[in-house]
Amino acid sequence: MATLGDIGVAATINILSAFAFLSAFAFLRIQPINDRVYFPKWYLKGLRSRSLHTGAFVSKFVNFDFRSYLRFLNWMPAALQMPEPELIEHGGLDSAVYLRIYLIGLKIFIPIACLAFAVIVPVNWTNKTLEHSKLKYSNIDLLSISNVPLGSNRFWIHLVMAYTFTFWTCYVLKREYEIVAAMRLHFLASEHRQPDQFTVLVRNVPPDPDESVTQLVEHFFLVNHPDHYLTHQVVSNANKPSELVNKKKKMQNWLDFYQLKYSRNPSQKPSMKTGFLGLWGETVDPIDFYTSKIETLKKEASRSPFEAEAIQSICISLERDKVMCSSKSVIPAAFVSFKTRWGAAVCAQTQQTRNPTLWLTDWAPEPRDVYWDNLAIPFVSLTIRRLIIFVAYFFLTFFFMIPIAIVQSLANIEGIEKALPFLKPIIEVIPKTIGISIPMKATFFITYIMVDGWAGVAGEILRLKPLIVYHLKNFFLVKTENDREEAMDPGAIGFNTGEPQIQLYFLLGLVYAVVAPFLLPFIIVFFALAFVVYRHQVINVYNQEYESAAAFWPDVHGRIITALIVSQLLLMGLLSTKEAAQSTPLLITLPMLTIWFHRFCKGRYEPAFVRYPLQEAMMKDTLERAREPNLNLKSFLQIAYIHPVFKEVEESESDPASEESDQEPVLIPTKRQSRMNTPLPSKHSGSMTSLG
Amino acid sequence: MATLGDIGVAATINILSAFAFLSAFAFLRIQPINDRVYFPKWYLKGLRSRSLHTGAFVSKFVNFDFRSYLRFLNWMPAALQMPEPELIEHGGLDSAVYLRIYLIGLKIFIPIACLAFAVIVPVNWTNKTLEHSKLKYSNIDLLSISNVPLGSNRFWIHLVMAYTFTFWTCYVLKREYEIVAAMRLHFLASEHRQPDQFTVLVRNVPPDPDESVTQLVEHFFLVNHPDHYLTHQVVSNANKPSELVNKKKKMQNWLDFYQLKYSRNPSQKPSMKTGFLGLWGETVDPIDFYTSKIETLKKEASRSPFEAEAIQSICISLERDKVMCSSKSVIPAAFVSFKTRWGAAVCAQTQQTRNPTLWLTDWAPEPRDVYWDNLAIPFVSLTIRRLIIFVAYFFLTFFFMIPIAIVQSLANIEGIEKALPFLKPIIEVIPKTIGISIPMKATFFITYIMVDGWAGVAGEILRLKPLIVYHLKNFFLVKTENDREEAMDPGAIGFNTGEPQIQLYFLLGLVYAVVAPFLLPFIIVFFALAFVVYRHQVINVYNQEYESAAAFWPDVHGRIITALIVSQLLLMGLLSTKEAAQSTPLLITLPMLTIWFHRFCKGRYEPAFVRYPLQEAMMKDTLERAREPNLNLKSFLQIAYIHPVFKEVEESESDPASEESDQEPVLIPTKRQSRMNTPLPSKHSGSMTSLG
Repeated sequence: MATLGDIGVAATINILSAFAFLSAFAFLRIQPINDRVYFPKWYLKGLRSRSLHTGAFVSKFVNFDFRSYLRFLNWMPAALQMPEPELIEHGGLDSAVYLRIYLIGLKIFIPIACLAFAVIVPVNWTNKTLEHSKLKYSNIDLLSISNVPLGSNRFWIHLVMAYTFTFWTCYVLKREYEIVAAMRLHFLASEHRQPDQFTVLVRNVPPDPDESVTQLVEHFFLVNHPDHYLTHQVVSNANKPSELVNKKKKMQNWLDFYQLKYSRNPSQKPSMKTGFLGLWGETVDPIDFYTSKIETLKKEASRSPFEAEAIQSICISLERDKVMCSSKSVIPAAFVSFKTRWGAAVCAQTQQTRNPTLWLTDWAPEPRDVYWDNLAIPFVSLTIRRLIIFVAYFFLTFFFMIPIAIVQSLANIEGIEKALPFLKPIIEVIPKTIGISIPMKATFFITYIMVDGWAGVAGEILRLKPLIVYHLKNFFLVKTENDREEAMDPGAIGFNTGEPQIQLYFLLGLVYAVVAPFLLPFIIVFFALAFVVYRHQVINVYNQEYESAAAFWPDVHGRIITALIVSQLLLMGLLSTKEAAQSTPLLITLPMLTIWFHRFCKGRYEPAFVRYPLQEAMMKDTLERAREPNLNLKSFLQIAYIHPVFKEVEESESDPASEESDQEPVLIPTKRQSRMNTPLPSKHSGSMTSLG
Repeated sequence: MATLGDIGVAATINILSAFAFLSAFAFLRIQPINDRVYFPKWYLKGLRSRSLHTGAFVSKFVNFDFRSYLRFLNWMPAALQMPEPELIEHGGLDSAVYLRIYLIGLKIFIPIACLAFAVIVPVNWTNKTLEHSKLKYSNIDLLSISNVPLGSNRFWIHLVMAYTFTFWTCYVLKREYEIVAAMRLHFLASEHRQPDQFTVLVRNVPPDPDESVTQLVEHFFLVNHPDHYLTHQVVSNANKPSELVNKKKKMQNWLDFYQLKYSRNPSQKPSMKTGFLGLWGETVDPIDFYTSKIETLKKEASRSPFEAEAIQSICISLERDKVMCSSKSVIPAAFVSFKTRWGAAVCAQTQQTRNPTLWLTDWAPEPRDVYWDNLAIPFVSLTIRRLIIFVAYFFLTFFFMIPIAIVQSLANIEGIEKALPFLKPIIEVIPKTIGISIPMKATFFITYIMVDGWAGVAGEILRLKPLIVYHLKNFFLVKTENDREEAMDPGAIGFNTGEPQIQLYFLLGLVYAVVAPFLLPFIIVFFALAFVVYRHQVINVYNQEYESAAAFWPDVHGRIITALIVSQLLLMGLLSTKEAAQSTPLLITLPMLTIWFHRFCKGRYEPAFVRYPLQEAMMKDTLERAREPNLNLKSFLQIAYIHPVFKEVEESESDPASEESDQEPVLIPTKRQSRMNTPLPSKHSGSMTSLG
């Protein structure tokens, strides 16, 4: 059982380490040599480049402007300055909405903490239960519910507070759901024309003895969506050719490296050995060597009946001829495009045939978001995989209970005594009441929050691992500018690990709000610090690859609701051990109301995240028709969903043409720029300000 | 604990009473006076009428054809003879599918019973657990699982049987789901043209300051479904005028009665008193009295601004004029009709606007299935009502546990001893092992099955209550032929009470299949008897008012799955008390697999019951366009969804016109005949055969 002093010591250590991380970050980030580690986002957006730093050679690596060291905490206000609409433009809606989760934490817990310290803490403190008992206690325990005597009428106050906290949490959740839904709808409505708005992915096209997949798809949609069908693109299994292309790419990179080396130092002809890691074997001219290798691969690719036919089938489909493709390479799936968003919305959201496992239609993902390898998995295999995962998941959960039960029996005080008898004299002192275990665990969680939530978040901004990895790569592996770009890539912000971490804090905060409110300030500090840090990271570091338009929000909402219900059930259990059983009916009503609230929100807001209303589609269609009456949609959509391998082949074979087409991005989506491109640098970007 | 003898006595009593019911039925049904009680379906279909019986006056009431008494059990094969397609035509798909539930019972339990008697019964019987114990037991207990010793390896056989029974049940369920889904799709595909195929019910039309509901609806659908929108009909709150119409109808009936009386006996002018029940008050000529009353009501109706305006609004909408209706009587809901089934299917199955609580679209019910009073309930009120029901339902379940717990503690043997100490000497003999309570309850359920399932079903065919009620009504209340029709009306078959009863039998059968298989034959007899009896009733008695096209099947399926899972969990609990805990992992897998099977069926077959595939819609549209290229769909749909009150007003005001339009049922749906009309009497109908 930690005393106030223990917590103070832990707090000091963690605050000091957090401060050390922040100072190290402040120092490292303004060194030009680290620029690509701490501001990769701006490089990727093309708003920073090497040429930014001119002057002495050394100043390319070390910052000698000493004034900038004085402003070392400037990044914090800078990170908060960029307004949300610009943040959405800059980092995508997903990132902006992800940051809102931290904000919700503040919105929920700051008022709850104020109320808890104003009401619950005095109510707990003005009892003498612990004083009169023979238990050993610390000052901090006087503030928790364990200081209230058994069966006391004061528990009604805790009950009222539980209701208040639930209503406040639900209110904040409802408002946020509303705001995020509106943000999503606005984001979708203001999106530019994109192929996925017009396209539906059709899977499980049934086999037909008389028609090829492409003919079948065309006939089916001409019959059943006669006024709306425009064109389609069958999916080919291109795993083999894509292997060849990757090999060629690697060779090309080596060729570029040696050509660059040669052009910089024309006096010395480069040479290399063909053996393992270039350590032994025949000595050759690497430029000739790789050029001939690439030629061989090109020939192999064109000899490969596979790729050749697939390319042929694309060319054929481009020319609207009905020649059958190689049946082996074609998968019974297709990307079907429609003349209007309305037509696509209708097709994606309805069932096509009697048999619900055939002609499955769903919105097509963005072309860059398609995971081509998986499209080749047949439906039966998918179903079986799902069953296996279902059974495995169940048994994992089920058998996981066994070690948990063992640990739990040990965690039980009597269990420890039995398993480790030498601890007996110590334990016999540490008292056996259920109420006391709550603050004991609360102090554990306070320490946890300080380590994981304070120092951990401060460590996140330092990016120690990427920093080291980047410099190592830069020193040993980077051969061309292309490689440096790759070494610099910060990847996407880790929603998959970050979100569950936040959920733990929500659970802790809601559980302890009534029971031991002195935990709340620690959580509030975490949410505030994490919000600033991650906002800075979104602006300067991370680069989202895909954009789901905040489709994850219903899950975030659902998990906070779950945490709320868990906290209510735990309170019910706790109060029953405190002999306040008369409050049970009122406490049962609480989760019922919460579940009802969840269902209400599901009905009211979830459709915005799963369905696409026809009115929206019609509105965009009508506007577009008015603005661009002569738009050739077909050429825009025709090759949007070609396997990237074929696209690359086409590009490499017609480079001059593709450069020309750059001026018409609307018509040739292969050169389409992603929506991450902002036309102008932000006035509020942290990096600009601090280096100003 | 019942012995074999006890069960024999109970069986004798129940078989005798069932036989008595069947004999009484066989006698009563061939008396002409009861014809309308036992064959109302044929009267309602217009295939029987009073004129069927000619001859002596007495033979109108009593059957003197003694040969027909000899064939008194003929109705059984007759009930089975009508083939299923004809049964669907005759009694609707709902009834035909409902009968299949009994058939499933037979399909599941006959093979299970055979297997159980071949394997489990010998395995149980060849033990000596009960013999060697000091327990008192009867022969029948030797066949149950309680005769297997604790921790015996023989429990593996029960385990294998549990798996076999589960797989068999799932196989039958899957096949039935497949068949019923196909029946439903075929039924829907072969339906004649009906207004509900083209119509969507739109609720929650948002208020608009500038436009009336009817204008708003028209504009919205013209904009968002421009190629498909045809016409619409706003919903009016006609609760007040419908009251007036009902009153008028009652008066008209009295008038008819006195006119008929006067025409039969013109010498005596009828007279009545105006007071309570015609016992006192002024004496008047009833024909004059009611004629003047009806006139007053007619005037009142036309004075009522309500009805007048509503009718006016209909006329106006008929003439396609944009005059606003009275805002008070119009509800923000409308029936919107489309040019094609495809258009209606799209509109009914998609979301219209951003806000998912506005412009709610759903398939329109059949016109006669619309519950007009409820359409007037506003959405907010509906949500609140749902919350109230949700909370009430929870507390009902929750507090219901309290009496159950009291009863359970009494049912516990020690509990009975404590509560009723005088029973102690008797109880101290009955032994305290868990295994024994299973066969004890099995014999209870056997008795229950015989009373409720055998005698009860035989009682159903006798229709004692409707028989008495009909004769009483006929004697005291029936004034006109119209009244007799109403007195005869058998109503619909009670799905709502019948289905849960069947589910209890499924639960019992599945629970006891492994534990005490001697219960199974009793259940099989129930299913067989009930199948024949209800098939007879569907053919001859009940008259389904609505047709859901077997939309209830997913629920039936889900409940049998639930019964299966309950039986598996009970077996798991039982085997753990029998110290066969090593089988637990295998027993847990069983419900997991069952749940997976349920999810598979849900994905594969449920869509046939909730969605309407676009291909089906397109097919019907195309066929219709080819067959009737000049069809005027608009006139067919225009007044299909007018409130019945207004329809009656219109009809009564233009009787000659409506008679003319009888020749064109396609154009005037107010005179549309329901799909229950068969063109020809069945060759296989039970009634025809027996009266031959």
